[in-house]
Amino acid sequence: MTTGADVEQQVRAAAERAREASYGLALATRAEKDRALGAMADALLARLDEVLAANADDVRRAEGSGTPANIVDRLRLDPDRVAGMAQGLREVAGLPDPVGEVVRGSTLANGLELRQVRVPFGVVGIIYEARPNVTADAAGICLKSGNAALLRGSASALASNTTIVEVLRSAVEGAGLDPDAVQLVPGEGHEGAKVLMRARGLVDVLIPRGGAGLIRSVVEESTVPVIETGVGNCHVYVDAAADLDKALAIVVNAKTHRTSVCNAAESLLVHEDVADDFLPSVIDALQERGVTIHGDERFAEYDGVVAATPEDWDTEYLSLEISAAVVPDLDAAVRHIRAHSSKHSDAIVTEDLGAARRFTASVDAAAVLVNASTRFTDGGEFGFGAEIGISTQKLHARGPMGLPEMTSTKYVVTGDGHVR
Amino acid sequence: MTTGADVEQQVRAAAERAREASYGLALATRAEKDRALGAMADALLARLDEVLAANADDVRRAEGSGTPANIVDRLRLDPDRVAGMAQGLREVAGLPDPVGEVVRGSTLANGLELRQVRVPFGVVGIIYEARPNVTADAAGICLKSGNAALLRGSASALASNTTIVEVLRSAVEGAGLDPDAVQLVPGEGHEGAKVLMRARGLVDVLIPRGGAGLIRSVVEESTVPVIETGVGNCHVYVDAAADLDKALAIVVNAKTHRTSVCNAAESLLVHEDVADDFLPSVIDALQERGVTIHGDERFAEYDGVVAATPEDWDTEYLSLEISAAVVPDLDAAVRHIRAHSSKHSDAIVTEDLGAARRFTASVDAAAVLVNASTRFTDGGEFGFGAEIGISTQKLHARGPMGLPEMTSTKYVVTGDGHVR
Repeated sequence: MTTGADVEQQVRAAAERAREASYGLALATRAEKDRALGAMADALLARLDEVLAANADDVRRAEGSGTPANIVDRLRLDPDRVAGMAQGLREVAGLPDPVGEVVRGSTLANGLELRQVRVPFGVVGIIYEARPNVTADAAGICLKSGNAALLRGSASALASNTTIVEVLRSAVEGAGLDPDAVQLVPGEGHEGAKVLMRARGLVDVLIPRGGAGLIRSVVEESTVPVIETGVGNCHVYVDAAADLDKALAIVVNAKTHRTSVCNAAESLLVHEDVADDFLPSVIDALQERGVTIHGDERFAEYDGVVAATPEDWDTEYLSLEISAAVVPDLDAAVRHIRAHSSKHSDAIVTEDLGAARRFTASVDAAAVLVNASTRFTDGGEFGFGAEIGISTQKLHARGPMGLPEMTSTKYVVTGDGHVR
Repeated sequence: MTTGADVEQQVRAAAERAREASYGLALATRAEKDRALGAMADALLARLDEVLAANADDVRRAEGSGTPANIVDRLRLDPDRVAGMAQGLREVAGLPDPVGEVVRGSTLANGLELRQVRVPFGVVGIIYEARPNVTADAAGICLKSGNAALLRGSASALASNTTIVEVLRSAVEGAGLDPDAVQLVPGEGHEGAKVLMRARGLVDVLIPRGGAGLIRSVVEESTVPVIETGVGNCHVYVDAAADLDKALAIVVNAKTHRTSVCNAAESLLVHEDVADDFLPSVIDALQERGVTIHGDERFAEYDGVVAATPEDWDTEYLSLEISAAVVPDLDAAVRHIRAHSSKHSDAIVTEDLGAARRFTASVDAAAVLVNASTRFTDGGEFGFGAEIGISTQKLHARGPMGLPEMTSTKYVVTGDGHVR
C-alpha cells in the first residue's frame, strides 16, 4: 500500500527524470527521433504476445467488475489494433520535424539577427481514458516533437499501458535515446494524476484526452498550464439561402457518420423561411437512421419528435440524438450558438456569400465550416497527419493539434557585441 | 461599503458587457479601430487637466500614507507623460491589424478550402500595478487586436485610472464603437481582481503585469487561462572564446543600462580559462558604476566583492547588484542557468560558433542572445512596435508580446456540400 506522500515523491521523481531526458531529446536530430519511432513500431509487433496478454488481464478484470460492453470494447486490443498503433508510429516518423523551424526572422536596424525558432515544450503530461492505443500515439507524437511524455492512462488499462510503455522504452533505449522520454505516471487511483496537475515547473503542459468530466477536473485542479481538448456541442445552421439537398446530406453526415466523437453535430438550427420545406425531409432522414430529435415547438409538431428541455441545447449527446430549433434569422442562429456552443465546430449551409461571411466572422469556434460537415474538424482530415487532440481553448492552439502545436518557440538573437 | 457578493455581481456584469462589446469589436475594420485610437489620443490631450487633477489626488494620498518616493514617482503623471500615452496610442494605430491575417491555408485533396485566420481572444483582463500609463497602453493594444479590455490597476492609482478610462471610453463611443470595450474592473481591495481570476468562460485570458508577487498570485489563483509575464533572472555567460572587450561592454550594459527592468542581467558566469583576464576588469567596471557583486569563491577574492549566499543565484535584484560565478565549462554554465534562470533572457559572449550553437540549443529561455545584451529582449527593440509584456511561459506566446500575440485563431473551412 502506497501513501499519498510516496506517490507524490514517485511522480515528482518521474517528472525530474523526464526533465533530464527532455534536455537530450531537445537536441536529438530528426534522423535519431525517426529511428526511435521505427524501433517503437517494430517492438510493438515483435512483442505482440506480451501486449495482448497484458490487455487480456485488463479485459478480464473489466468484465469481472461489470464494466459496460462498449467500454470493454474500447479497452480491448487485437493484432489489428496493435498493428494500427505501430502504423501510427511510422506515420509520425514520416512527418516533418517541427523542432528548429524558423517561424519568423529578420535583421533589425542595428544589425542584430532575430530568429523565432520552434523548440519542444520540454515535459508534457497526458491524462487519458480507456483506449490503450493512446499510449503509443501520445508517446510517438511527444517524442517526434522533442517532448518527454508523462503518460497517465486509466486504471482499467493499467496492465496494457504498463506493458506497452515497457516495450516502447526498451525500443527508445535501443535506438540510443533516453528511455525516460517515455514514462507511465506512477501511483494508484487519482493520486498520481493529482500530483501531476500540481507539478508546476516540473511539467510544462498538461493535455487531458477524454470525456467532459475528465477535462473539467483537469482544467479546474491543475496549476500546470493545460490545453483543453475535445468537448464538442457542434451546430449545423441551415440558412434561408441553403441548398436543401446539400443541407440534408451535411446534417445526416454530421450527426450519424460517427456519433461518439467530438466533431459530431449535436444541434440543428433551421431558418424559418425554409422550415416548411426542410423539416419534413430532415426529420424523416434522421429518424430513418434511428436519431431521436429533441425539438423546439416547430419541430415538435412532427411525429416522433420529443419536446426539447432547456438542458438539451447544452447537451453533447455523443449518441443518436440531436437538438433542433427553427430560428427567425442568421443573427438569431449566431446568438443561439454563442449561448450554447462549446466553441468546437459550427457549420452554416448557405449559397449566400454575405451570410457565409457574416457567420464565419461572428461565430467564435475553433472551426467554422461553410457547406461542409462538422466531421471534417480533424487532424487527419486537415492533413496534419497526427493529432494529439482538438483544442477548444483559445490560448496556444485552437482546433486539431498536430506536431507544430506540440512546440513552443524561443527567440535566438545574434549580434557582434551589441549593447543599448 | 460594498460586500463580496456585490463585487462579484458587479465584476461579472462588467465582464458580460465586455463580452457583448467584444462581438462588435471583432467585426470592426482596421479603419474604425484606428479612428478610435486617434480619438483616444486626442481626448487624453484635450482633457489633460482632468487627468492631472485626478492623478494629483492619487499622489497626495500616496504621499500622505508614507509611500516610498520611487513608487510615488511611478504613479505621478505630468504633461509629458500624458503626451507619451497619447503618442503610444497613435503608434498602435500605425501598426498592422493582426485580426484577419491568414496564418495557414491550403486546399485539401477533397477540394475543401482550409484557412487558419487570426481572431481576437474576446475579453482580456489585465491586472497591473502602479503606473497609470499602462491603462492607456493596455486599452490601446486590446482595442487594436479586437479584444475588449477589463483593466484592474492598483488601488493607489484608482483616481487616475478612473479618469483615464472615462476619457478613453467617451472617445471610443464618439468614434462609433462600444465604450464597454474599455472598462475598469469594479470592487475595492483585492476583491475585484479575485472575481476576475475566477471568471472562467466570461474572461478569455488574464495578463498580469507587475512584480513577481503579483504574477505568482495570479498564476496560482486564476482558473482563467493566464499569460505569465515579466520576471527575469537573466544571465550573461562569458565563454572561453569570448572577445573580452565585447564581453565587458555587454555585461556593463546588461546590468547597468536600466536596472529596474525584467531584461536586466542579474547573474554573470565566466569560463575559468578567461577568469584571470576578465575578472579584474569586469569587477572594476561594475564597481565603478556602483554595482554590488555577490560572488562565488573566485570572485570573492577581489576587494569589495560580497560572498554570495545560495539565495543570490535565484534573486532578481532589479537594482545595482549582480551575482557572479566562475564555471569550469559551457556545460556547467548551461546547468547553472537551468537550475536558476527564470527562462526570460540568457546571453553567451563567444567567438566560437560551436559554443554559440550549443548554448542557444541547450538554454531553455524566451530569448537566447549571442554577443548581445539581454536588454534587447523587448517588443520595441524587436520591431513589434507595441508590447503588452514579455511572456516567460511556453504556451501561446513566449518573449515580447506584440499585437499578433494578443490574438487566437480559428479555422474557416469552405466546401460545397462536403460530407465524409
